[in-house]
Amino acid sequence: MSHLHKPFLNSNKIYVPGQLYPEIQVAMREVSIEDPEYPKVPLYDTSGPYSDANAKIDVRKGLKRFREDWIASRGDVEELDDISSAYGKAQRANKDLEHLRFEAYHKPFKAKPGKKITQMQYAKEGIITHEMEYVAIRENQKLDALNLGLGKPITAEFVRQEVAAGRAIIPANINHPECEPMIIGNAFLVKINSNIGNSAITSSIEEEVEKMVWSVRWGADTVMDLSTGKNIHETREWIIRNSPVPIGTVPIYQALEKVNGVVENLSWEVYRDTLVEQAEQGVDYFTIHAGLLISHIPLTEKRTTGIVSRGGSILALWCMKHKKENFLYTHFREICEILASYDVAISLGDGLRPGSIADANDAAQFAELDTLGELTKIAWEYGVQVIIEGPGHVPMDKIEENVTLQVEKCHQAPFYTLGPLVTDIAPGYDHITSAIGAAQIGWYGTSMLCYVTPKEHLGLPNRDDVREGVVTYKLAAHAADLAKKHFSSQFRDNMLSRARFDFRWEDQFALSLDPEKAMSFHDETLPSYQSKKAKFCSMCGPNFCSMRLTQAVREFVTTGEISDF
Amino acid sequence: MSHLHKPFLNSNKIYVPGQLYPEIQVAMREVSIEDPEYPKVPLYDTSGPYSDANAKIDVRKGLKRFREDWIASRGDVEELDDISSAYGKAQRANKDLEHLRFEAYHKPFKAKPGKKITQMQYAKEGIITHEMEYVAIRENQKLDALNLGLGKPITAEFVRQEVAAGRAIIPANINHPECEPMIIGNAFLVKINSNIGNSAITSSIEEEVEKMVWSVRWGADTVMDLSTGKNIHETREWIIRNSPVPIGTVPIYQALEKVNGVVENLSWEVYRDTLVEQAEQGVDYFTIHAGLLISHIPLTEKRTTGIVSRGGSILALWCMKHKKENFLYTHFREICEILASYDVAISLGDGLRPGSIADANDAAQFAELDTLGELTKIAWEYGVQVIIEGPGHVPMDKIEENVTLQVEKCHQAPFYTLGPLVTDIAPGYDHITSAIGAAQIGWYGTSMLCYVTPKEHLGLPNRDDVREGVVTYKLAAHAADLAKKHFSSQFRDNMLSRARFDFRWEDQFALSLDPEKAMSFHDETLPSYQSKKAKFCSMCGPNFCSMRLTQAVREFVTTGEISDF
Repeated sequence: MSHLHKPFLNSNKIYVPGQLYPEIQVAMREVSIEDPEYPKVPLYDTSGPYSDANAKIDVRKGLKRFREDWIASRGDVEELDDISSAYGKAQRANKDLEHLRFEAYHKPFKAKPGKKITQMQYAKEGIITHEMEYVAIRENQKLDALNLGLGKPITAEFVRQEVAAGRAIIPANINHPECEPMIIGNAFLVKINSNIGNSAITSSIEEEVEKMVWSVRWGADTVMDLSTGKNIHETREWIIRNSPVPIGTVPIYQALEKVNGVVENLSWEVYRDTLVEQAEQGVDYFTIHAGLLISHIPLTEKRTTGIVSRGGSILALWCMKHKKENFLYTHFREICEILASYDVAISLGDGLRPGSIADANDAAQFAELDTLGELTKIAWEYGVQVIIEGPGHVPMDKIEENVTLQVEKCHQAPFYTLGPLVTDIAPGYDHITSAIGAAQIGWYGTSMLCYVTPKEHLGLPNRDDVREGVVTYKLAAHAADLAKKHFSSQFRDNMLSRARFDFRWEDQFALSLDPEKAMSFHDETLPSYQSKKAKFCSMCGPNFCSMRLTQAVREFVTTGEISDF
Repeated sequence: MSHLHKPFLNSNKIYVPGQLYPEIQVAMREVSIEDPEYPKVPLYDTSGPYSDANAKIDVRKGLKRFREDWIASRGDVEELDDISSAYGKAQRANKDLEHLRFEAYHKPFKAKPGKKITQMQYAKEGIITHEMEYVAIRENQKLDALNLGLGKPITAEFVRQEVAAGRAIIPANINHPECEPMIIGNAFLVKINSNIGNSAITSSIEEEVEKMVWSVRWGADTVMDLSTGKNIHETREWIIRNSPVPIGTVPIYQALEKVNGVVENLSWEVYRDTLVEQAEQGVDYFTIHAGLLISHIPLTEKRTTGIVSRGGSILALWCMKHKKENFLYTHFREICEILASYDVAISLGDGLRPGSIADANDAAQFAELDTLGELTKIAWEYGVQVIIEGPGHVPMDKIEENVTLQVEKCHQAPFYTLGPLVTDIAPGYDHITSAIGAAQIGWYGTSMLCYVTPKEHLGLPNRDDVREGVVTYKLAAHAADLAKKHFSSQFRDNMLSRARFDFRWEDQFALSLDPEKAMSFHDETLPSYQSKKAKFCSMCGPNFCSMRLTQAVREFVTTGEISDF
């Protein structure tokens, strides 16, 4: 997969050391441009070592485990002799899977008995971790060093306070030491998640690893592996070992595979073993649909599209078949205990999110939200970091209510929404219908946006769809940052607009979210090198280029002459 | 161009007669689906005869001139012996242009001396025209006949009132009788405009006519021909004669071509002749940058991106070179007189719209808006219909102010905005950055959204870009309609969502904005006919399809049994 290891146009990878922890090396991208005032533009960068020309990449070995020293230095975790999951052991013993297995095996870490090792727990105790300083530096993008009058930089102490209060999380499983720390919270840059994963119908391990690398190249802050097909365990191992961003999963999917897709055979024991299996592999956050109660199900009966969450519909069916309460709800404290031992964050799933405009903001959706608020408080008792998942399909005029109620009912835990899609009528373009809702809900206070690709509702996304979805969400998140007047957010816009006004074409490409696409679009009609210096493009041609004309106006105001008209 | 003449999937063209005027035949699309309750879904349709299997299409002859009878019946226009424009006559006499010329020449119409023939004038006099009844029927999409509890249908009298008050316009030049009437105003469905037109660098007449037909197929409510290259006069004739939607232009572009691109040689005389030339060809609305005053220009000096409107920068340069007031401002009453004789509507251009986030909502932009408000009142004195153009590049938190000020300063004349783009950093994806702003500003009260294609800032859009831009804006406009709770807007969403829940794949495709793309995306991974009946798609596979699972839940609630799990 050497084609995935390449730097961005006119960019270098830079590493910024910490002050509290000088051994920290915060990875950023630095773009070199021809702006006389700001020749170097540092950018927030999710792409990990894949965009560092000097990094060694070997997907069979995995990324550097740089967080291991930080974790070990805290003295509160131990290395286990073997993995704890019965299923995981059986998979390891299965000779038929040799060819699929990730080579470089590492023994798992776990909290020492009695020790509390989550970022939230440290924050509550007043400890600033390596991870907290890392994200503070990362959020500032070196712009705190420039005197831009852009508002207040983020400090490590501020990060600690937000994590302690539950208003932000740093998903960082101790078994995913390859991960570059990042933070999800309303006071920080809006983040985006990309979903990958095979299904029973299509795709392979190679494809999924490639989609992960591809996702982070274009800007995914976290990646969820939603595999539901074959070899889920092995696929996940490859993804985590090669991922510079937090990985999320929905463990009920694999649990269902283990019982051959027969929903009523799901049990707490199978699910519990799956949590342990995945926590020891290094999954950073789990989506858990513990808020869907049996009493909520009748509320969905009159809906246009019923229950559209996969996890939600599985659990609803389980409840009905057994005439029992959702076992994720009844076992929620045990779940928290397991998650706390590895610092896996919990993403409380919205199993009853609306799947159509007609069902938006209904009683079923908000009943579940009440339960999610209750569960948030329980998770926090265990020091488990929490985010809350949100809809779905919602018309623009009903979006704000979602944020208002989520903040109120879930005690300011970060909100993590899918879209929302603001209309149902554009299959094939649902990355866009949802980006409209995503930008808006991000502005209102959502901390992370789960992307949607053009294939939504139609099929499994391929590599191109992933890129389209990620860049679309990156621009929506950035639009939200601008509207929130986030520290540093407008600097990149300003630099790109100056480049545009100065006809520095290559600088425009290099500063844009997708330099390769911008350049290829430009080159379709004006491919020559000379045209990259041209004071016009094919859209207007030379006589009608407003930028060229307005420069002439300025020259005239200053000198009374105009040289090139 | 026979490939452009084809019906939509499972759809027929239907024609709804008027009641006041039984000779009216309002064109709509009707989709046949397998919903037991609503087997026929009527849709608003901009595609004209091109999607009618029974229509005869010959681009060399042009579309049927069905409005001629309506216009003649009012008895207030006369046929001219020849065209009035000196330039137009010279073009006609030029033998070298024979091969480019549109064959079927028609003599132009003009108001009889002393007669006032604009839709606004009729409306003020209490007259409901054919065009007014047409748009009322069109807006209702036959849903007033169903008992859906969807709010109040539009009446022809309501249309008349809105046009009389200047809150809505019906662009309908008497020389464009091929055009199917449509209405632009805050009380009606949000409309979208597609820009086409060649530039000095690329494209031909055939390509531009094809882009127009392509635009209306995907949903453009109006099309602006922004040609700036060769043969502007001839290109426009082909476009108008074949266009079922109103055509807009920016006459200053052609005026500048006539003086060989030398801005200081522009004059009122050249411009005046251009207005007459284009009005007699049938252009339905003109963008006129009459609000940019010489005193505004210094306000742009500190801007990051100066003046980004092409028309604005041309006029600013003219003002500076001549040290005179903008001649479009000083001759504004003469302009109105000309436009009133043909019922050309005026779109007051925002020459000082911001071209970057940094310049949004600044003094230059709002100073021009003041002048646009003043000009609106003058145009209304002449019965000229007016819309007001708006930005541009604006972050989400500054969008609402644009609408509030426009409504206040421009006396509720309809607002027509370009995007706005909510960030500068995504060239290659600016159809999306701008659709986010467009959906939002549409919700706040903008009546028409000017599309942006993925090529914006980079080059001239091709056919695929036009389709991508139009569908993107169609979904943004529809999202705004939903948020405004517009009469009838949610019916299509509901029908599509019911089809989705019932696994009626083909119905989903047929009801979506781009049936061909939706179907091709689906078929990439599950192409067989059988899979179109399948109760899952490749995204989740059969065991993880939430729709299938939730149907099982419902069955269980009702019968205590589940048949297929």
